[in-house]
Amino acid sequence: MTTIGPTDSSLVPRFAGPATFARLPRLDEVPAADIVVAGVPFDSGVSYRPGARFGPAHVRESSRLLRPYHPGLGVSPFEVAQVADAGDIVANPFRIDEAVESVQAGAAALTADGARLVVVGGDHTISLPLLRAAAERHGPVALVHFDAHLDTWDTYFGAEYTHGTPFRRAVEEGILDTEALSHVGTRGPLYGPRDLEDDRRLGFGIVTAADVYRLRVDEVVDRLRARVGDRPVYLSIDIDVLDPAHAPGTGTPEAGGLTSRELLEILRGFADLDVVGGDVVEVAPAYDHAEMTGVAAAHVAYDLVSLLAMGHARRTAV
Amino acid sequence: MTTIGPTDSSLVPRFAGPATFARLPRLDEVPAADIVVAGVPFDSGVSYRPGARFGPAHVRESSRLLRPYHPGLGVSPFEVAQVADAGDIVANPFRIDEAVESVQAGAAALTADGARLVVVGGDHTISLPLLRAAAERHGPVALVHFDAHLDTWDTYFGAEYTHGTPFRRAVEEGILDTEALSHVGTRGPLYGPRDLEDDRRLGFGIVTAADVYRLRVDEVVDRLRARVGDRPVYLSIDIDVLDPAHAPGTGTPEAGGLTSRELLEILRGFADLDVVGGDVVEVAPAYDHAEMTGVAAAHVAYDLVSLLAMGHARRTAV
Amino acid sequence: MTTIGPTDSSLVPRFAGPATFARLPRLDEVPAADIVVAGVPFDSGVSYRPGARFGPAHVRESSRLLRPYHPGLGVSPFEVAQVADAGDIVANPFRIDEAVESVQAGAAALTADGARLVVVGGDHTISLPLLRAAAERHGPVALVHFDAHLDTWDTYFGAEYTHGTPFRRAVEEGILDTEALSHVGTRGPLYGPRDLEDDRRLGFGIVTAADVYRLRVDEVVDRLRARVGDRPVYLSIDIDVLDPAHAPGTGTPEAGGLTSRELLEILRGFADLDVVGGDVVEVAPAYDHAEMTGVAAAHVAYDLVSLLAMGHARRTAV
Amino acid sequence: MTTIGPTDSSLVPRFAGPATFARLPRLDEVPAADIVVAGVPFDSGVSYRPGARFGPAHVRESSRLLRPYHPGLGVSPFEVAQVADAGDIVANPFRIDEAVESVQAGAAALTADGARLVVVGGDHTISLPLLRAAAERHGPVALVHFDAHLDTWDTYFGAEYTHGTPFRRAVEEGILDTEALSHVGTRGPLYGPRDLEDDRRLGFGIVTAADVYRLRVDEVVDRLRARVGDRPVYLSIDIDVLDPAHAPGTGTPEAGGLTSRELLEILRGFADLDVVGGDVVEVAPAYDHAEMTGVAAAHVAYDLVSLLAMGHARRTAV
Amino acid sequence: MTTIGPTDSSLVPRFAGPATFARLPRLDEVPAADIVVAGVPFDSGVSYRPGARFGPAHVRESSRLLRPYHPGLGVSPFEVAQVADAGDIVANPFRIDEAVESVQAGAAALTADGARLVVVGGDHTISLPLLRAAAERHGPVALVHFDAHLDTWDTYFGAEYTHGTPFRRAVEEGILDTEALSHVGTRGPLYGPRDLEDDRRLGFGIVTAADVYRLRVDEVVDRLRARVGDRPVYLSIDIDVLDPAHAPGTGTPEAGGLTSRELLEILRGFADLDVVGGDVVEVAPAYDHAEMTGVAAAHVAYDLVSLLAMGHARRTAV
Amino acid sequence: MTTIGPTDSSLVPRFAGPATFARLPRLDEVPAADIVVAGVPFDSGVSYRPGARFGPAHVRESSRLLRPYHPGLGVSPFEVAQVADAGDIVANPFRIDEAVESVQAGAAALTADGARLVVVGGDHTISLPLLRAAAERHGPVALVHFDAHLDTWDTYFGAEYTHGTPFRRAVEEGILDTEALSHVGTRGPLYGPRDLEDDRRLGFGIVTAADVYRLRVDEVVDRLRARVGDRPVYLSIDIDVLDPAHAPGTGTPEAGGLTSRELLEILRGFADLDVVGGDVVEVAPAYDHAEMTGVAAAHVAYDLVSLLAMGHARRTAV
Repeated sequence: MTTIGPTDSSLVPRFAGPATFARLPRLDEVPAADIVVAGVPFDSGVSYRPGARFGPAHVRESSRLLRPYHPGLGVSPFEVAQVADAGDIVANPFRIDEAVESVQAGAAALTADGARLVVVGGDHTISLPLLRAAAERHGPVALVHFDAHLDTWDTYFGAEYTHGTPFRRAVEEGILDTEALSHVGTRGPLYGPRDLEDDRRLGFGIVTAADVYRLRVDEVVDRLRARVGDRPVYLSIDIDVLDPAHAPGTGTPEAGGLTSRELLEILRGFADLDVVGGDVVEVAPAYDHAEMTGVAAAHVAYDLVSLLAMGHARRTAV
Repeated sequence: MTTIGPTDSSLVPRFAGPATFARLPRLDEVPAADIVVAGVPFDSGVSYRPGARFGPAHVRESSRLLRPYHPGLGVSPFEVAQVADAGDIVANPFRIDEAVESVQAGAAALTADGARLVVVGGDHTISLPLLRAAAERHGPVALVHFDAHLDTWDTYFGAEYTHGTPFRRAVEEGILDTEALSHVGTRGPLYGPRDLEDDRRLGFGIVTAADVYRLRVDEVVDRLRARVGDRPVYLSIDIDVLDPAHAPGTGTPEAGGLTSRELLEILRGFADLDVVGGDVVEVAPAYDHAEMTGVAAAHVAYDLVSLLAMGHARRTAV
Repeated sequence: MTTIGPTDSSLVPRFAGPATFARLPRLDEVPAADIVVAGVPFDSGVSYRPGARFGPAHVRESSRLLRPYHPGLGVSPFEVAQVADAGDIVANPFRIDEAVESVQAGAAALTADGARLVVVGGDHTISLPLLRAAAERHGPVALVHFDAHLDTWDTYFGAEYTHGTPFRRAVEEGILDTEALSHVGTRGPLYGPRDLEDDRRLGFGIVTAADVYRLRVDEVVDRLRARVGDRPVYLSIDIDVLDPAHAPGTGTPEAGGLTSRELLEILRGFADLDVVGGDVVEVAPAYDHAEMTGVAAAHVAYDLVSLLAMGHARRTAV
Repeated sequence: MTTIGPTDSSLVPRFAGPATFARLPRLDEVPAADIVVAGVPFDSGVSYRPGARFGPAHVRESSRLLRPYHPGLGVSPFEVAQVADAGDIVANPFRIDEAVESVQAGAAALTADGARLVVVGGDHTISLPLLRAAAERHGPVALVHFDAHLDTWDTYFGAEYTHGTPFRRAVEEGILDTEALSHVGTRGPLYGPRDLEDDRRLGFGIVTAADVYRLRVDEVVDRLRARVGDRPVYLSIDIDVLDPAHAPGTGTPEAGGLTSRELLEILRGFADLDVVGGDVVEVAPAYDHAEMTGVAAAHVAYDLVSLLAMGHARRTAV
Repeated sequence: MTTIGPTDSSLVPRFAGPATFARLPRLDEVPAADIVVAGVPFDSGVSYRPGARFGPAHVRESSRLLRPYHPGLGVSPFEVAQVADAGDIVANPFRIDEAVESVQAGAAALTADGARLVVVGGDHTISLPLLRAAAERHGPVALVHFDAHLDTWDTYFGAEYTHGTPFRRAVEEGILDTEALSHVGTRGPLYGPRDLEDDRRLGFGIVTAADVYRLRVDEVVDRLRARVGDRPVYLSIDIDVLDPAHAPGTGTPEAGGLTSRELLEILRGFADLDVVGGDVVEVAPAYDHAEMTGVAAAHVAYDLVSLLAMGHARRTAV
Repeated sequence: MTTIGPTDSSLVPRFAGPATFARLPRLDEVPAADIVVAGVPFDSGVSYRPGARFGPAHVRESSRLLRPYHPGLGVSPFEVAQVADAGDIVANPFRIDEAVESVQAGAAALTADGARLVVVGGDHTISLPLLRAAAERHGPVALVHFDAHLDTWDTYFGAEYTHGTPFRRAVEEGILDTEALSHVGTRGPLYGPRDLEDDRRLGFGIVTAADVYRLRVDEVVDRLRARVGDRPVYLSIDIDVLDPAHAPGTGTPEAGGLTSRELLEILRGFADLDVVGGDVVEVAPAYDHAEMTGVAAAHVAYDLVSLLAMGHARRTAV
């Protein structure tokens, strides 16, 4: 199999040329893609600092240094699968409900031919329509959700679709497999113990940020993998799962978070899971410095792509 | 007449104590206020960079250095009128229409007893409900609108209330006196010549940023004053009327803008106008540096308060 | 028992309303407080980068996201105790000795009725008068001091009260229980081995930043708790105990520091200590980015409040 | 004539979609272009702060707000001419001589069919090969050069092609019309009076930054236009012609510069000149804040495109 | 006469080598100096944002681009006079009175052999001891004081020496010639009309920032020169005379200030005054961006040196 | 033995006085030096973000807080050896090959009398000439190389000397002992598995950033020490070995890096190795914040100096 890979950096320096994700070809430049990266520049669902609408452009600029071989996973993702950048899925900035519909439609269209999708947000509101699109193809999916927050709150100022509610909505809609739901990296104050009770009742297990410290990465991976099993699994990474030291460019920062090394090592433990899609959200560039949040998010997206590419290789191997 | 003034800086250093506007008393600390300063932390009507929801808190922090005597106008505004900080008018961040109603109601409540209002935004969407509240008391008002943009566009993504539309809506609603409408400081590309034609048809005259350069401030003041006459006039200042050099902390920056000195000198030319209220909007702190935008906005708000105080003094003089 | 809690975020978004600590009521809004949070905007005792005078305002702004339930400690601190923000204790910026007196008097006044106090600084000079006030009520107290530095130096440029000397002064004054003094997180170069000898002679034990790495948090907690026992203990946290990655906004940064997760987990190990008060100091906002230092300090202060609230609950339980 | 214009912002918000200049189509998306915008990400010729290699990407991101009608010039540049973004001309970062050749070849290729070219740099070294390409088509050209510096120095550290030398080289090579060379905006210290004598001998007239202040824009325009006459003229704008207040993101800042309003108004005075091409160079994004330099440069490039479009319209009018 | 000049930039690039002011020799590297540049890293007299203690180091770093010929004044200052960097005058950060004594002694020592002194601060407190040292040699001196503020306040928090009081103290001490005192660039609110009356009574004339706009530079120069006459004159430049757009890195910013071009052009109008010394103060680097304030201050200091050099040349000409 | 130590901070505050490394004497101020610190302000070999040319000045400014006793190593490095700051080795910014020669010659000159050298870069290109100079004196040396990248790539854009190639060149030149070469901290994507094969073939062993997490510091130290044995060893630290959280100010950041505490603790494990020299490179100040990268690099350089001082003490002990 021959794929069209990223711009050759021996011909075009990494600081030159258009900023598609990892300098990959645009979707319209390839005959067909196995894995698609798309942006969703939408942040009208945030409760605190806005700005994640600029996340896709920022993460793409921050992805210029990504080279094509992943030594941690031992894979050349852009060789074993055709990966392409589909550009942005557009969403109405003034009407959340309409935006949710657009994102779902956009994701469905991009995956209609069987391609799997990695999305760069945008705020966490968008995981709901992305999960809907994933469930349409794969049925209710397992979820590993990396975040400082539970995101299983109910309405806020009368809105049912916000960045604090996607996973409650998703459980209510029956698009998640409630036997296999995990939060990783939660920390920080809540409204009350009922937040945790509600969350547990929805089916979630929790590996807190403190647990990641105490159990360390390999044990965390074992627990998460055990919970997922061989189910199709969706990976949703709110960049605020990282400590503000590693990801200042986000909207609702909480101290005491994961390091980027912990996050990446956990993701690399998922090499043989059946990952059906994923997102990295809540990158708010106005609060970033020297692209440190952008680079972390770009590495996360690259790992998501690599996991999908390994799955693709397994499925297409004779 | 005795008023309650700002915190005494000989007792409490300016970097200490709560950050009400200009360290003024809160509204609940005074028997009654002649002039009220309020924040409207709302930015869901923006088309580009969000973040003006943090504007009120930022401008208040940036107002700590404001002392009580205005040498340019020769007035001690906090002595000739009781001025107080009413805190923030709350607006739903997810539903623009509801937010517009809340702001109108909030403004009406604060001015119910005859107080005049200076608002710190928030995005420019809020000028519509503020003008409604002003017109309720004063009838259709004249307007001097400082901005890089016309803000007389029609709907955007289906929304009729956004930060690009308040003055078209206001003319349509009959709450502006179309004989006396001026934009000051406009510049930058438009969609087409029809933008200007529509704007003219709504009744606006324009003093562009380049005109301010060529005519210089005193001539600009003369023209604007002539247009307003003795009508009640509302002053709306989008901080992006300033060049990005003076106000980087805003959402839709355009090169070629006014200096803060020009803006303040124009405002100081309005000493004998019948100013009924005003706002300073579009301060987006995430893009500010060293509070330079916050300080400019704080000075603008201070000038608005001073103009209102002078009017109050005239009206209450025997 | 019913308390007055923070501003309800379902009515007022977290980016709106005044920035008291954690959006708590002001002290003058409650009948009486069990725990008081106060700022001390003073930084005239620093030897390097000044700016901590803006620490209290910055940490309050950075505390807007703090919700009312602490899942790590399993407590709703604002329910089990009445907590209030007392505003700032004013201190003369030009005369250190006078400032030290004012802070002591201010702290004594705020705790006169038995309330316990959490202070946001300000530079570390202020811990001396705060310890004096604590010792007046509780006798000589145990101390757990988190810091990159020992802060047991002697005079500097002839001044005996600076941010490098509070704990030497405190031992000399007999207000610390020299059986139970610990530094945590020290690192970086010293003047000579005598610094350590002097420090030891004053009674301090040291858990360096490297020790925290090697022993890991739970072992560190055990050692610190053993040293404190059931003594009344004061917790003083210089934010520079954190690595500059986690707390760039401080005056004398040293590489190789703690993560915010380590610091918060250690504090959470003190749930059953008899904490009588505490401070978080040396936040210099001009060097912060995206409030990352402010958020870390706000979480630390929230944990101090929570520890005090748990103690209050124990003492007031039937 | 029908052109393909920028992405429609009523369908795709300005913060979404790829960041071509002004959201214009790529060159490969149009049948043929009349005016081409290209980036030259090269900064190996700088003598002080590097970083202009990121200029093209930065200016493109900063150009997202540019709308399609220029009210100052009364033209819709993307309607009267087909304008397209040709992407970046690649240049070897380690070998200046080779880079100079590549840029010349790239410019020649893009203009081979008669298109005119606006380049976003990159450092000022690139103006030499761009002038060579222009002179190939148009013969020796007049030059209006906006800059804080003369850029007519001789070799530096043995290199003859650096950002301080392009215009001396160009005169030596006979590709400039020495009757019609102007610097605008120079200021700051020089090496000696001989710098000015050499410069004069090469044929340059100077309008210093102080002259722009004293003469004011319209007189400056008159003088510059008189000097150019009806010659083909190349416009080269080093963004450091602006004061650091307006353009902090550059490599060799000098106090006392032009405002962005002055610069844009001067450019707008060139509406009827025969502009054959132009560049805006020396945008170093690592030193920019809130895209203020990027926005200024984007407006300058937009004005260059508009001037070229007006010329195109004149030449193609019946 | 042969002088030792700055490091040769054809041998050592400007980004290399030690950061003495303008890369000049250290005082200990020259036999004797006619003009001395010294830093005074002291900021304990500030009432708002501290940090000017880092001003000298910052301005020196920002002076690396200064070349040796001043085209505006037509002088090579380092050729017509021996100029050297004397390093920093040390001042006790904890005791203002002692610091004032040290600065006076330091200045006296540096000028003991007739050298004239340019100081980079530090906060404005230091102008008092610098004026004392100047008056010791020259008798009461005329003063042109560039500042947003009057700096003729009386005590603050009981301190008589602060950055708000140097010129009142200086008049009281009889070291200023009260026939020839001018403020330039004042603006922003005051405490009351009495501030202006007191100031007038002390002998000051005022050219406000608005006056500079209306009169324009050449008229301002004429008025200031007329007031000074042939008296020995001291020039004190608080960098906050510039608008925050030009000088964000300062402690008490006020909107509506001068441009750096206006300030530099005014200084250049003083070519034939008998300048006896000067200072540029209140550069607070923590609030600067991309050295824009540092560069402005470096240019101001360079102009002061050039004025002194021209005077030296006049006095030493046969 | 008596040495000349750093400026006494009880006489001159740390924010005052010249910024030599750690406020040490200049090389010309001491009779002879045992250990020399030098800067190499050169960054023309970078492939992505430039700016490390300002690294030496920045690290020196960031080293002002370094005190003279190292408690982790138990040594007063400036007492047991004469340490001095030699200033910068100048390198041609436009010609890499010439620059490489200059750095080699400069290093050879500084070590001609037996002094050992610690260099602050500059980009990683400079390690090649530094290793050449080391090998001239010590023969082929062992290497412990801390970096996110392998830096054993071959040519890039035709250049054989870049920041991605020094260690391949060094092996080819026979100046490294290929039995004892280690990379520490590598991570991030590569071009292909062949990168690793080539690297292995050159003789390198790898301890990845993930290995440092899993093995923890003491085990890493054991492995590295075992590999070095008693060979003369050179330590080269690319600051990008740190996570961008700890070192944002660098040119090719990769997520998932070491903490500064890990790096410093590893270095402290080398107390008894025969360190012959070292460098810390790739500090790009334009991307730094609050000197956090500068402080980390200054601590690294301080540890290098301390290791060299301990070796000097061992060699000179009777």
